[in-house]
Amino acid sequence: MSSDRISAQMDFLTTADQLKSVSRATTLADGSRSENSAEHSWHVALYALVLGEHAPEGVNTDRVIRMLLLHDLVEIDAGDAPIFGEHDAAALAEQESAAAERLFGLLPGDQGRALRALWDEFEGNVTPDAQFAKALDRFQPPNQNLASGGGSWISYDVQYDTLVARVGSKIAHGAPMLWDWLQPRVAAFFERMR
Amino acid sequence: MSSDRISAQMDFLTTADQLKSVSRATTLADGSRSENSAEHSWHVALYALVLGEHAPEGVNTDRVIRMLLLHDLVEIDAGDAPIFGEHDAAALAEQESAAAERLFGLLPGDQGRALRALWDEFEGNVTPDAQFAKALDRFQPPNQNLASGGGSWISYDVQYDTLVARVGSKIAHGAPMLWDWLQPRVAAFFERMR
Repeated sequence: MSSDRISAQMDFLTTADQLKSVSRATTLADGSRSENSAEHSWHVALYALVLGEHAPEGVNTDRVIRMLLLHDLVEIDAGDAPIFGEHDAAALAEQESAAAERLFGLLPGDQGRALRALWDEFEGNVTPDAQFAKALDRFQPPNQNLASGGGSWISYDVQYDTLVARVGSKIAHGAPMLWDWLQPRVAAFFERMR
Repeated sequence: MSSDRISAQMDFLTTADQLKSVSRATTLADGSRSENSAEHSWHVALYALVLGEHAPEGVNTDRVIRMLLLHDLVEIDAGDAPIFGEHDAAALAEQESAAAERLFGLLPGDQGRALRALWDEFEGNVTPDAQFAKALDRFQPPNQNLASGGGSWISYDVQYDTLVARVGSKIAHGAPMLWDWLQPRVAAFFERMR
């Protein structure tokens, strides 16, 4: 019955509300507080909407937007793992997979499987859509840090080479035009900080 | 040049960050604090992704998601006008229109015009896509209020008839199946509150 279906979907959507209480390492552009994962998800989806024209050929911007709306939901159970922090990658992958099982499992079966597949595709980072989505997810925090005067680069004592290795490489891979734009700006920032 | 284009787009996206600091009347589902307009925008876009199957025929869910990602940006300049509050509708429309002019004006001309047209379509509430988007924007807060035990209904001393007139009518118009699901739940809540 469609009413039972809506009830299951509303369980999922009301549980998803908890993403608004998951705090990230990145701050708002004005540096006033940490960003949470729900507003970050909105921001990167808006990035996709606006910057989709710079994606490599064959990328479907609407699929990328859908991926980015979902990409952090697992943090409701698994928390946010800051990119410059230390964590056990295998343990984290297991926690996130269990979270995906529980959260997408709240939805009607067919829909839960479809959205889980979209999240798996994002995590897999193999298809052009996933690579562009992942690139945007990596591209937003450096722009927040440039705006706020350093942000998580300062709090995690990040060096330029580490940034290029952990973040730049992913952006260059999925969205080369955006890395071409960002790289000189980031290099100039770290040059000034020396 | 594509680099100038990206610079203009990044001006827009970094300005958009300010939506994370616009506070709404509705709270989180756990009642712990007010929701902000950026995380609300993420939440309603996720509503569209999940509930799009219940839209009237002909609605394009991906266009609806794009509308909802943009729909509150004008609040950066004009603020959020709570639906149960009192405000001068003509003055507010003028402030929001000036905000749209400024904000979409940060983008490259062709893109700014296209996104402004999408926002105008949402505000116009005439096309099926806009009516479904508007219905979801009205459907999320009552669900937050049901989860938190009253939320903005309590703080604004809202009566059931007012809720049906200001909110229910819009939901019923753009997403009749969702109003059929919500109406008995809301009615039962107000019955218990008597």
